[in-house]
Formats: sequence, C-alpha cells, structure tokens
Amino acid sequence: MTKYVHGYTTRENQRLHDQSYILEELLHGGTAYPPGSRVLEAGCGVGAQTIVLSRRNPGTQITSIDFCADSVAKARILARENGLTNVHFLECDILNLPFAAGEFDHVFVCFVLEHIDSPIQALASLKKVLRVGGTLTVIEGDHASAFWHPETPASLKVWRSLVQAQAELGHDPLIGRRLYSLLNTAGYHVEYVAPRWIYADGGDPKLLDGLVNKIMVPMVETAKDRAMDLGLVDPETWRQGIGDLALTGIPPDGSYFYTWFKARALKAGD
Amino acid sequence: MTKYVHGYTTRENQRLHDQSYILEELLHGGTAYPPGSRVLEAGCGVGAQTIVLSRRNPGTQITSIDFCADSVAKARILARENGLTNVHFLECDILNLPFAAGEFDHVFVCFVLEHIDSPIQALASLKKVLRVGGTLTVIEGDHASAFWHPETPASLKVWRSLVQAQAELGHDPLIGRRLYSLLNTAGYHVEYVAPRWIYADGGDPKLLDGLVNKIMVPMVETAKDRAMDLGLVDPETWRQGIGDLALTGIPPDGSYFYTWFKARALKAGD
Repeated sequence: MTKYVHGYTTRENQRLHDQSYILEELLHGGTAYPPGSRVLEAGCGVGAQTIVLSRRNPGTQITSIDFCADSVAKARILARENGLTNVHFLECDILNLPFAAGEFDHVFVCFVLEHIDSPIQALASLKKVLRVGGTLTVIEGDHASAFWHPETPASLKVWRSLVQAQAELGHDPLIGRRLYSLLNTAGYHVEYVAPRWIYADGGDPKLLDGLVNKIMVPMVETAKDRAMDLGLVDPETWRQGIGDLALTGIPPDGSYFYTWFKARALKAGD
Repeated sequence: MTKYVHGYTTRENQRLHDQSYILEELLHGGTAYPPGSRVLEAGCGVGAQTIVLSRRNPGTQITSIDFCADSVAKARILARENGLTNVHFLECDILNLPFAAGEFDHVFVCFVLEHIDSPIQALASLKKVLRVGGTLTVIEGDHASAFWHPETPASLKVWRSLVQAQAELGHDPLIGRRLYSLLNTAGYHVEYVAPRWIYADGGDPKLLDGLVNKIMVPMVETAKDRAMDLGLVDPETWRQGIGDLALTGIPPDGSYFYTWFKARALKAGD
C-alpha cells in the first residue's frame, strides 16, 4: 500500500479518472481487440483505464488484476456503476499470476511498470500467460520528458522532487524511454514503441488548463509528503513551485509538454 | 560571426546538411507554397534548408537572407551546385530588411529565433514585409526536450553545457515552448504550434544511428570550445559525456527523443 508514489487519496482517484478522460484517444487509440478475445489488464488500480478498455472493446472478456485489495474493491464498484459486464476483477501479484500458460490473447498494461520493482520480471511473468501470437500493449510515462513555460527554478525543483521520490522507491519514473530495451530483454518481438505526447498552449486554453490543472499539478502534489519526508524540497520552495507550475496553465503565455510511450509487442513462437 | 553557438566549421556545415536530409519530412511536411508565391527565407545560413524549400516549392520566387556574409556565399555556391533557379540570396539584418511593406506572400524561418538577441523584434520586422493574409512558418528547437537512454551524469552535464553556452550568448535554446507566446506578442494570428518530434530506438537502428551520430552528438560537439571557455564542464567529463551520448545510438538498448516545434501564423488585416 505504501509503495505507490502517488498514494491512494480521494483526490488521486479523481486525478486518475480526469486523466483517463482527457487522454483516452491518446492512450487507447490504435488498441482494438476483436470480440471474443480474452484480455488481461495487469495493474488496473482503481479502474480508471478499465472502464475505457471495456467500453472500447465490446464483446471481449477482460480480467483486471491489481496487487492492492482496496484498489480492486474501488474498481469493482466503479465497474458496477458504469454497468460493465465483461470485466472480472482479481487481487493478485503480477509476479505470481493464477492463470494457465497461454490463457490470454492480449495483455494490456498502463502506468504499471513505472511503479514496480522488477519490470523485466513482470513482463516475463505476463509472457507466460499470453498465447503465442498474442499481443502485449504497454503504456508508460517518462517524467523527464516534461517541460513548460514559464519555467522557474522552483517549478523545476518541485517536478524533479516527484521524479526523485519515485526513484527512491526503487521505481523508474523515466521508464518510457526504456520500453524497447525492456521488451526486447524480456523476449518479446517488439512491433513498435512510439511517443504519445500531449502539448498545449494559449491556442487551446481548455486543453492547457486540463493538462496542467487536472493532470500535472495534482500528480506532483501527490508526492508532496514523500518529497518533504525525504528532504528533497523545503515547504516554501514547494509552495512556490506548485504556484509556478499552475501559472503554466494560463494563456496566452503558458505552455506544457509531456510524452508517454506506447508499445506493442508479440509473443513469438518458440 | 562569433554569436552562433554552433560555430562555422566544415563539420558543422556537414551536420546541417545531414540534419536537413534526415529531417526533411519532419520539418517541411505541411509547408507548400503555390507557384508564383513570393517567399522570404529569413536566416538561411549555409543554405541547408534553402535547397529543400526550393525543391519542394517549384515555381515560387524565394529570397533567402542571412546576416553572415560567409554563410550567404556558401549558400550561393550550394544553390548553384544544386541547380536552383528560383532563389535569390542577400546579406542583410533581419531587423533592418531592405524590402517594401507587404512584399512577401510567405515567410519561412527555421532554426533562427533560437540564435538571435531579439526574437520578438525579429518577428515584428518580418511582419512588416509580409502581406496581409500571408503566412509565417517558424520551426525552432527546444533543447530541454531531449532525453536518451542510457542516461548518465556525464551525458546530462555535456548536453546541459550546450544549453548553457547558448544561453550565455543571450539566446534561448528552449525557445520552442515559447513560440505561441512570441508570435502572439508580435501580433500574429497563430494558426497552430505543434511538436515535430523524432524518437528512435533499437527497432530502427539506422534512424537511431543517424539521429544520435549525425545530428545530436555533432551538434553538442560544436559547443565544446565555448563550454570549456565558460568553465561549464571539464575536459574529462566532456570526453566521458560525448562517449556516453554516442552509446545511446547503439541498439538494442539505446534510445533518443527530441522535439522541435513548428508554428504557422497569419498576418491579419489591420
């Protein structure tokens, strides 16, 4: 429970849902599973991506897992509220999956590898339960891809403290750039790894506000206590940095860029 | 002559031409001027983009200017060697243009604003010689958009010394993120500002090698003397950092990301 850098607060749940709405096409575009497919969503959290995955892939049988019982419980409620009928939830460890070899046609992993200790082992574990010829889709961020205007020392400091706080957990907030390497090492045949970026400026004030104030600032704020505890930043710089980041959401001068990476890989025959 | 961070060496000329070849579609895609158009290319340098612009826009009349006489001379030779017949070169200052108001239908600016003292004044100066309804296209980099794998302290240090060396000249190597703000301030109607990114990994070894070893490493190396003179990095760290950057070009584990920004703006009626 303590090893998710963003924590498990109500506001974080809201951020995850706001984010999945704003970013739906960006993240899910190009992922379409045929009816009848058996899909494993590994690391479903509170179900923010699950409801999108379910809605966009009608007729599939989705199994969504997470190691956190509380998150799975929340995801179950959300699925019920949204009337999802094709999702089965299960609390389990990605390194110890209770499934048969080749049980799934497709595996979907979104914002998970950046939060775990052993991404290569996790990919290897998922490969076992994927059928030969099946696909693995992975979407992860890269926190050093972010930049903004106006950039100030305090905003840089606060952002970098998020990166450091996550790294201190033994996780890699810069994992996006490593996806090809990781998938290759885990023995997948990589079809593509591609940046899925978002950029907003004064030309689209609504997107700029959503990106900065619904996704990025709330995400950084989740790391506040941990950053303070680790002594990565002092309270005054934190306050200043968050204020400066919020200013990047104001037109006409503000701008913000971030990129995730999306990869698709195949399990080749032996 | 001394105020171009990358200098004026033969190797730098070669880099500019290699770069324009690798990046042609990325930079010029979406820019097509009708035959008969009067086009001003402001800041043509040694003509690396001029020959692409000329070839992709047959039937236009292109005037290419640069403040550096030696670069203009090189660009003239290159144009002759490539048989360009629709380009006229002129040595002049972007802030003191020898053209009539509204003389041009379109203005094209590539990798220029990041290298000058007064980008807003330059944009205002160009606006005077653009006709009402004419377009301005601007392409600029943002050096803090770059990231790579493997990332090492020395490679970060060397890359950041390039950024600092350019900033010490009073120029802005992070100007890409400011294009909307600058164009808006200079009184243009901004149609769009969009990232034009390049990413390569082990999935495309040829692109990865070209990006790292034909564009990025040579670009950083042009700033070596200036970075040393300014004491931004010591020789041993420099050697290590350049070596580390070169390793990012090696599959299967290397990867590299960079984004430029491309903007199109209109001169609206008064």
